[in-house]
Amino acid sequence: MISTIAELRSFLAKARSEGKQIGLVPTMGALHKGHLSLVEACREECDLSVVSIFVNPTQFAPGEDFEKYPRTLDSDREKLATVEADVIFAPSTEEVYPPGSSTTVHVAGLTERWEGATRPTHFDGVTTVVMKLFQMVQPDRAYFGQKDFQQAQILLKMVRDLNLPLQMRICPIVREADGLAMSSRNAYLSTEERRASLVLYKSLQLAERFLAEGILDADRIRLAMEAEFSSEPLAKLDYVALLEAETLNEVDEIQSPVIALVAAWVGKTRLIDNLWLRPAPTTS
Amino acid sequence: MISTIAELRSFLAKARSEGKQIGLVPTMGALHKGHLSLVEACREECDLSVVSIFVNPTQFAPGEDFEKYPRTLDSDREKLATVEADVIFAPSTEEVYPPGSSTTVHVAGLTERWEGATRPTHFDGVTTVVMKLFQMVQPDRAYFGQKDFQQAQILLKMVRDLNLPLQMRICPIVREADGLAMSSRNAYLSTEERRASLVLYKSLQLAERFLAEGILDADRIRLAMEAEFSSEPLAKLDYVALLEAETLNEVDEIQSPVIALVAAWVGKTRLIDNLWLRPAPTTS
Repeated sequence: MISTIAELRSFLAKARSEGKQIGLVPTMGALHKGHLSLVEACREECDLSVVSIFVNPTQFAPGEDFEKYPRTLDSDREKLATVEADVIFAPSTEEVYPPGSSTTVHVAGLTERWEGATRPTHFDGVTTVVMKLFQMVQPDRAYFGQKDFQQAQILLKMVRDLNLPLQMRICPIVREADGLAMSSRNAYLSTEERRASLVLYKSLQLAERFLAEGILDADRIRLAMEAEFSSEPLAKLDYVALLEAETLNEVDEIQSPVIALVAAWVGKTRLIDNLWLRPAPTTS
Repeated sequence: MISTIAELRSFLAKARSEGKQIGLVPTMGALHKGHLSLVEACREECDLSVVSIFVNPTQFAPGEDFEKYPRTLDSDREKLATVEADVIFAPSTEEVYPPGSSTTVHVAGLTERWEGATRPTHFDGVTTVVMKLFQMVQPDRAYFGQKDFQQAQILLKMVRDLNLPLQMRICPIVREADGLAMSSRNAYLSTEERRASLVLYKSLQLAERFLAEGILDADRIRLAMEAEFSSEPLAKLDYVALLEAETLNEVDEIQSPVIALVAAWVGKTRLIDNLWLRPAPTTS
């Protein structure tokens, strides 16, 4: 458990000089099995796994849930012990952002739409803090979850565009038994809302079923997904989108794998989910 | 002489694994003694010196001198041989900016004024390409000239704000015998303009003389510097500024060291220069 950049650097410099491969799993804490699956993937590929726990203020807009975001450091440490993470890096806000910090990293083109439309400053906060963590840790590999699909695409682009010397790993979504994508924000849900939140995954499964039936028209699939939300009064749809993954552009017809994104409010909680849609191979 | 990032990385990985300290001198070529002094400083402190030569399109605005910026690779190589640079990295534009690149690094607060006022996109181009070069080379130390004072302050802030794991060295201005600060753009000057360009350094020396005489009022010094420019019809002043170095804020009274900046057009050529002004120690 390390809380200063200087201590982290001196620890990692030693490991690096011994030829150890370093993996980084950046988190905001409130860990669940999705996070732990990232640590497991990290441990499998790397000699040393660093898990950062930092609730990053710059990715929350005023009025969002920065203050009430769950902070559960003790239970996070216990969970990380079960997957044998090597280093927990849990710095203070002042350690990460000393007074006067004013440099940001911006990925144009992928950040304005979808999550960026309702959260216009969110992704600059994400790219900036991840860039900082990359520079603090200098990992050989970094692990992110597919749950935040747009975030993952943006970070992949940042790494490519700025020539960062590391490999990115995007790991599959981990779901509850009933299909709800694991998220630290699920803790906000009441019993009723928890039941209603299933509509996100249900709408994605519906899209998958349409595709299996040979329906490739994106508008038709989108409309069906939206109708699924109309049947759940506790959920308020923000968007459904069927996208080319790399550009996040909408497709008209599903001819190659596309990513289906959904975002919705369930009560006061904003939830997102996604699923790859792969058209069945055509027999010719 | 290396032109691809892959080849550069594999060469440097070997050097790094042998424990060599790597120094980087980023340049746009058209090398003069100022650049060579950076390479010399680099060679003194590091085991391996990398000089990048890349005329970075993103720091030129439309209508600026990107196309006609001097490109003198053969003579640059000869000059670098005299100071025994180890690696010249001269990538193509496509190697540095593949199609679709859209990520930028922005340092708010220091980039809007002075040079940023007349060149509003300039510094984002500089910070972004320097960040990319830092990631390609992963140097232990990087060397920049004080001639581009504001640029140096912005890069120092970027390194601090984003926790880059390297040391920055800002090296003194190298001047011609008559005082003109060396610059690749001096090559644009006609004989008449070359003579007129001395007004920049003369105005800085005038400020120094005022200070030596105990005049600490910034307005008075500025006015005298501006008057110096009025006496030179071939030069058109853009700004003179007496600044606190770290914030680039103007000072009213010189009580501690300040940096004096000047920027002016001489014909169609934009020149800048600067000088530290240090008040004489008071005897009490």
